[in-house]
Amino acid sequence: MKCKVCRQHAVVDIRRHNAAFCQEHFISHMHNQVARTIKEFKMFDADDRLLIAVSGGKDSLALWDVLLELDYDVVGFYLDLGIGSYSGRSKEAAISFAETRNAKLIVRSLAEEHGYTVPELAKLTGRVPCSGCGLNKRYEFNRAALEEGFDILVTGHNLDDEVATLFGNVLHWNVDMLGRQAPVLEERILGEGTDARVALVRKVKPLVRVAERETAAYALLRGIDYIVEECPMVEGNTQHRYKEAITLLEEASPGTKQQMYFGFLKRAAPRFIAESGEGRLVTCKRCSAPTVAWDGNDSEVLCTFCRTKDHALRRRTDRASIPSPRREGDVDTA
Amino acid sequence: MKCKVCRQHAVVDIRRHNAAFCQEHFISHMHNQVARTIKEFKMFDADDRLLIAVSGGKDSLALWDVLLELDYDVVGFYLDLGIGSYSGRSKEAAISFAETRNAKLIVRSLAEEHGYTVPELAKLTGRVPCSGCGLNKRYEFNRAALEEGFDILVTGHNLDDEVATLFGNVLHWNVDMLGRQAPVLEERILGEGTDARVALVRKVKPLVRVAERETAAYALLRGIDYIVEECPMVEGNTQHRYKEAITLLEEASPGTKQQMYFGFLKRAAPRFIAESGEGRLVTCKRCSAPTVAWDGNDSEVLCTFCRTKDHALRRRTDRASIPSPRREGDVDTA
Repeated sequence: MKCKVCRQHAVVDIRRHNAAFCQEHFISHMHNQVARTIKEFKMFDADDRLLIAVSGGKDSLALWDVLLELDYDVVGFYLDLGIGSYSGRSKEAAISFAETRNAKLIVRSLAEEHGYTVPELAKLTGRVPCSGCGLNKRYEFNRAALEEGFDILVTGHNLDDEVATLFGNVLHWNVDMLGRQAPVLEERILGEGTDARVALVRKVKPLVRVAERETAAYALLRGIDYIVEECPMVEGNTQHRYKEAITLLEEASPGTKQQMYFGFLKRAAPRFIAESGEGRLVTCKRCSAPTVAWDGNDSEVLCTFCRTKDHALRRRTDRASIPSPRREGDVDTA
Repeated sequence: MKCKVCRQHAVVDIRRHNAAFCQEHFISHMHNQVARTIKEFKMFDADDRLLIAVSGGKDSLALWDVLLELDYDVVGFYLDLGIGSYSGRSKEAAISFAETRNAKLIVRSLAEEHGYTVPELAKLTGRVPCSGCGLNKRYEFNRAALEEGFDILVTGHNLDDEVATLFGNVLHWNVDMLGRQAPVLEERILGEGTDARVALVRKVKPLVRVAERETAAYALLRGIDYIVEECPMVEGNTQHRYKEAITLLEEASPGTKQQMYFGFLKRAAPRFIAESGEGRLVTCKRCSAPTVAWDGNDSEVLCTFCRTKDHALRRRTDRASIPSPRREGDVDTA
């Protein structure tokens, strides 16, 4: 196996491109793929201020590295989800990367900001952890970007992530989600005239041309010390099953994932762009985040985040005020 | 495991319906599922003349049996594809079923009608066998239905078949195919006024609510002697891989296939209904079948079937007229 560029010994092969690369040319291939994606989807310019959400995993750290190498003005944002020692180790990976690269990292924690961790939220709401986690990340990423004055929020979603999401949306024909699945989600403005303000910052995914396996190889070759273990709460996650099913097909026919995702963007996505439904974008009465109002009473609307938080905190108060029945031998672990 | 209806010992369970049935009630469940589908999609009435395409396999024979039990006026059509002894055994299964049920079966053969078998066609055109096979079956089923005066062409496509096709169409975002994937394809009329004639007979798939495993169980319980082996040409067929991938998901979450298919019909299919493109339906100058013309010269158009046949027969003539270079020891097998 020889490098496509220099014919030296290759260290990474990419079957769907029918190509292999040596270390040096694989790294420049990755830079090119990301640069091409940024240009193709007009994601941002050299003078935009970028905030990248980093988890400490391979994708977000690899992307942060690529963007730094491409000389973008990019700051990291780490949100501590409070998932036991896993969060501790992933935070260390993010901090250590930032120090090595002399890059700025903003760190916030769900527990400090809102008084709960992801596992606690899951218990209080009785929902799967991934649901509350996703909601809180989307909310906090956007809030941090707005509060800290960034133009663009960057995430490390790779081709495999996007295909798994697409596959799930197609299995259930979630037509609203299909209408919103894109490498760029435009910013949303609330209010008019002098009241107008950015309510949702522009979101972009520069890794959509890059497979999971390639970000792992990039991180390895660049000496990025990322957290290898998967989130311990993710077990049985349907997204994982979708990845497995599609990987079966990718192995038999390299390029299947890329074809599915980019074919969707080109030929199908426009058919799902949300029709102007009955819901209008209004301001949450508590936190001012944008949310959808379905009836006339705009000033009374709470966003999903605030509703979920209220629900969780109410449940906690209820539990605290009702002494739980004790059996002999029980040990207090609270 | 007890029968949902009579609480006796069940012989078949259907996880996606969270139900199990004894022999008697499974058979009536199948009749109900087919009757419900015929009604739901307004497939046909009691006085329509139905032609069912039978392959000798479980699906088409099971469906023929159900339609006879439901007292429909239904005749079988078997097309001999000339796939060695496999075709011989599948024809026997079809003939034997018809005799046992005292039902009428029309038998035709590709070799007699057009001078080639499916394996020969594949060799002559250099295409995978499934491609020529599908084209010839669609063409011959429609021709037989029209020539023999039937109103409706019935096929035994089950839920697994439809989901695998849908999955393939979604992987490649074949938007034209997505626009035509439905349990009913309406008849197409060519010509106007007194020249008007049915060119494509109405096609229906009454098994779309029934999984492969259920038609197999039905055939077994009804003592239908079907051909169990798969077509020997189908190996490596992508449709099979799609079935495997989705079966992974169905096992983890029963109902996935049904949800994907019926969700598509309800929420997505209307978005793919073919826009009136540049192509118009015209008559093939050779065989009068309907075909699409892309330029102005309507009277010169050949349909895909006639073009493929021409191509194959021309290749055969070329081969016969050019003596192939012989090496010593070669044996004449032509």
